[in-house]
Amino acid sequence: MQNVQKYISENKDRYVSELMEMLRIPSISADPKYNGDCKKTADFVAASLKKAGCKTVKVFPTPGHPVVYGEHIIDKSKPTVLVYGHYDVQPPDPLELWESPPFEPVIKKTKIHPQGAIFARGSCDDKGQFYMHVKAFEAMVATKELPCNVKFMIEGEEEIGSKHLGDFCEANKKMLACDVILISDTSIISNKTPSICVGLRGLSYLEVEVTGANRDLHSGVYGGAVANPLQVLSEMIASMKDKNGKITIPGFYDDVEIVSKTERAAMNKAPFSLTAYQKDLGIRDTRGEKGYTVIEQTSIRPTLEVNGMWGGYIGEGAKTVLPSKAFAKISMRLVPNQKSDKMTKLFTKHFQSIAPKSVTVKVRPHHGGEAAVTPTNTPEYKAAAMAMKATFGKEAIPVRSGGSIPIVALFEKVLKVKTVLMGFGLDSDVIHSPNEHYGLFNYYKGIETIPHFFANYAALRK
Amino acid sequence: MQNVQKYISENKDRYVSELMEMLRIPSISADPKYNGDCKKTADFVAASLKKAGCKTVKVFPTPGHPVVYGEHIIDKSKPTVLVYGHYDVQPPDPLELWESPPFEPVIKKTKIHPQGAIFARGSCDDKGQFYMHVKAFEAMVATKELPCNVKFMIEGEEEIGSKHLGDFCEANKKMLACDVILISDTSIISNKTPSICVGLRGLSYLEVEVTGANRDLHSGVYGGAVANPLQVLSEMIASMKDKNGKITIPGFYDDVEIVSKTERAAMNKAPFSLTAYQKDLGIRDTRGEKGYTVIEQTSIRPTLEVNGMWGGYIGEGAKTVLPSKAFAKISMRLVPNQKSDKMTKLFTKHFQSIAPKSVTVKVRPHHGGEAAVTPTNTPEYKAAAMAMKATFGKEAIPVRSGGSIPIVALFEKVLKVKTVLMGFGLDSDVIHSPNEHYGLFNYYKGIETIPHFFANYAALRK
Repeated sequence: MQNVQKYISENKDRYVSELMEMLRIPSISADPKYNGDCKKTADFVAASLKKAGCKTVKVFPTPGHPVVYGEHIIDKSKPTVLVYGHYDVQPPDPLELWESPPFEPVIKKTKIHPQGAIFARGSCDDKGQFYMHVKAFEAMVATKELPCNVKFMIEGEEEIGSKHLGDFCEANKKMLACDVILISDTSIISNKTPSICVGLRGLSYLEVEVTGANRDLHSGVYGGAVANPLQVLSEMIASMKDKNGKITIPGFYDDVEIVSKTERAAMNKAPFSLTAYQKDLGIRDTRGEKGYTVIEQTSIRPTLEVNGMWGGYIGEGAKTVLPSKAFAKISMRLVPNQKSDKMTKLFTKHFQSIAPKSVTVKVRPHHGGEAAVTPTNTPEYKAAAMAMKATFGKEAIPVRSGGSIPIVALFEKVLKVKTVLMGFGLDSDVIHSPNEHYGLFNYYKGIETIPHFFANYAALRK
Repeated sequence: MQNVQKYISENKDRYVSELMEMLRIPSISADPKYNGDCKKTADFVAASLKKAGCKTVKVFPTPGHPVVYGEHIIDKSKPTVLVYGHYDVQPPDPLELWESPPFEPVIKKTKIHPQGAIFARGSCDDKGQFYMHVKAFEAMVATKELPCNVKFMIEGEEEIGSKHLGDFCEANKKMLACDVILISDTSIISNKTPSICVGLRGLSYLEVEVTGANRDLHSGVYGGAVANPLQVLSEMIASMKDKNGKITIPGFYDDVEIVSKTERAAMNKAPFSLTAYQKDLGIRDTRGEKGYTVIEQTSIRPTLEVNGMWGGYIGEGAKTVLPSKAFAKISMRLVPNQKSDKMTKLFTKHFQSIAPKSVTVKVRPHHGGEAAVTPTNTPEYKAAAMAMKATFGKEAIPVRSGGSIPIVALFEKVLKVKTVLMGFGLDSDVIHSPNEHYGLFNYYKGIETIPHFFANYAALRK
């Protein structure tokens, strides 16, 4: 282990500059304009794996963005760890709020990151986090201290629902066979308080369209008599939550996993300050489902959020239009037992049923994924917890995250393998937002911790 | 009169091609990008007036877009008609719904316009309509049959609330002195049923901004606990109308003019088919204030309409963002006695009062204007009614319009002069919408009717 850590320490600067090179490629999977950049990033990842010493590397095309696969078998009798990550990133909008361009990474010091942090779209989610594995792997190979077989599967469609990964896994079950899946795409509580993610919410993402008249109208001539789709859509959205913040879709809560009082009590022991939370976000009050703490609202409870909404005249100045159409992008975060497909159907049925006769509505499902809970009594969880203890000098706290990595449930279903979510980000890294960044402390800590995981896992599986 | 009509008939084609030339200039007053085009259009109007024989023509700069002024005094003892119009146009968005580019006018035949109609932004509102006056004036001057003094005031800010016209009128009261103001910026019931507008609604146009967290957030990590401004704005907008379509702003209806049962009964005798209305708009049901007919809802009742709304991710695909901000453009149409400034204040106060503590709101007033009702027992109304009877062969019906021309109330206040609203558009001309057009029938009919108005008015004022 000493040799590995020495190698990492000696190559730190190069590890950062390589990551920054990848961050310069705008691999925005949601926008077809960037298809070429996604391919370019896949090739960059493949080249990195080869350079790191990975024996077999292949870029698999899919009907969407390619999957990069790497395989390094040292001994068939040893356990195999499959590292999953994604090289695609969220769109950078709103661009005007970035302090430096999203695809021109810069290192800046912040209060939380006195060592500096890399500012760029994808720096944390997930280029910075999966690249830690490539670099840790390089160090273990270079020092001949790799104790397990390793497979890499780095995809390019996570931010758009991993659309083609299910088919890819089904078609390549044998190639992907492994003992555990290791993912760094989650966060720790703070740089002083390590944690391991043991739960993820599922997702159902939809787009709705409300149409009133067959054309935009003059709001003076028709206003007051013809349904305004923006008014109607506002009313429909408003009606989908009651005054206690409960979602009103019939059947929405039927399958929700009931978390025991004991578990809830344990969960709420995690360090959390409502005052600090509100101060960080610049808000005077939170707003969620009554009867639950912020920690519970963002982990064990399902949600419905409007991610985007538009219609009518949204340019400079004023236009007295009564628009023909209004749109919204709406997503639901789901908890264990709530099936994404079922929730999509319930939403669609309800949304259509509450539309007044004066409008027509369309609901288009975008993508979805299942919630997942990972057990803490497994060798992989123990290997991760011990690894974090070794590098942070502190016990890691198991926490449920509010985000979604639908692939975790998919892996369990298709590959019959459990996942360990050993992420190193911070909530304050503002992933999905302007000025996303990833601390150098976190990047290095991740690279240092991963070889411990491999060593512990090999030992525990003996 | 015969000579005038002969002159018009002989110059019809040129009258159309000149209008089309002006329609090619994108004089969008709302967007500063088009400031140069607004100036260019003002110069075009000035040149047209000169060519038509107007003795004095001047382009007055304002802090916004210029006002074109023309003056043609034939005899100080004769009555003076001030023609008002506006050369600015609404933004053409959404561009993709135009069948031909908005600033490349083309003539196409439609079911309602078997003679053809000019398709272009501003063709009806108001370039086509005010240009009729320039051309009718040309015919009267050329045939030496002009019976009144004429003044022209063609402004460039009507679509953005005539921001600087109040000051302009105040500063030039003497120059603008007149006996009546004549405006063509309204519509007739149909090409077979002439009508004269005798009422206009007032306006208060505002923009609202709702802010939750100080940055865009990941909807998985924060969703369920932090206020979503799109959800909050939807709820606020929804709450502003009750289940009977009544606006819930306290005090909103206090000053509303009560229209007598007799007047309402008379109003509802105007030809109107709900079936045809719904079919034309492609809707199965209307949606307005309960207890009032469509005619009443769009004329004697005040309204509140969302003209635009936006926030979060509105691009292609999906982004799981919990946005920091949501925006809406909202306008209220006001009826006689409801003062625009007061309504703007009531809205602002109410909007701020209903915002939950978890967000902050800003309200920015855009512009406003007062409602107006014009009497039917005046020489100018009679002159217009007789003129329409002469050219349409039918009595014109007096109707109240739902739109706003704030300048009418302003003229009354500043210049102490009544207005006659003799417009020739059709509701189906889709002004403010894609594919705005103006029938050649209507353009010619307007040019033919205007000299009758002048002759009648001069005779009635003797």
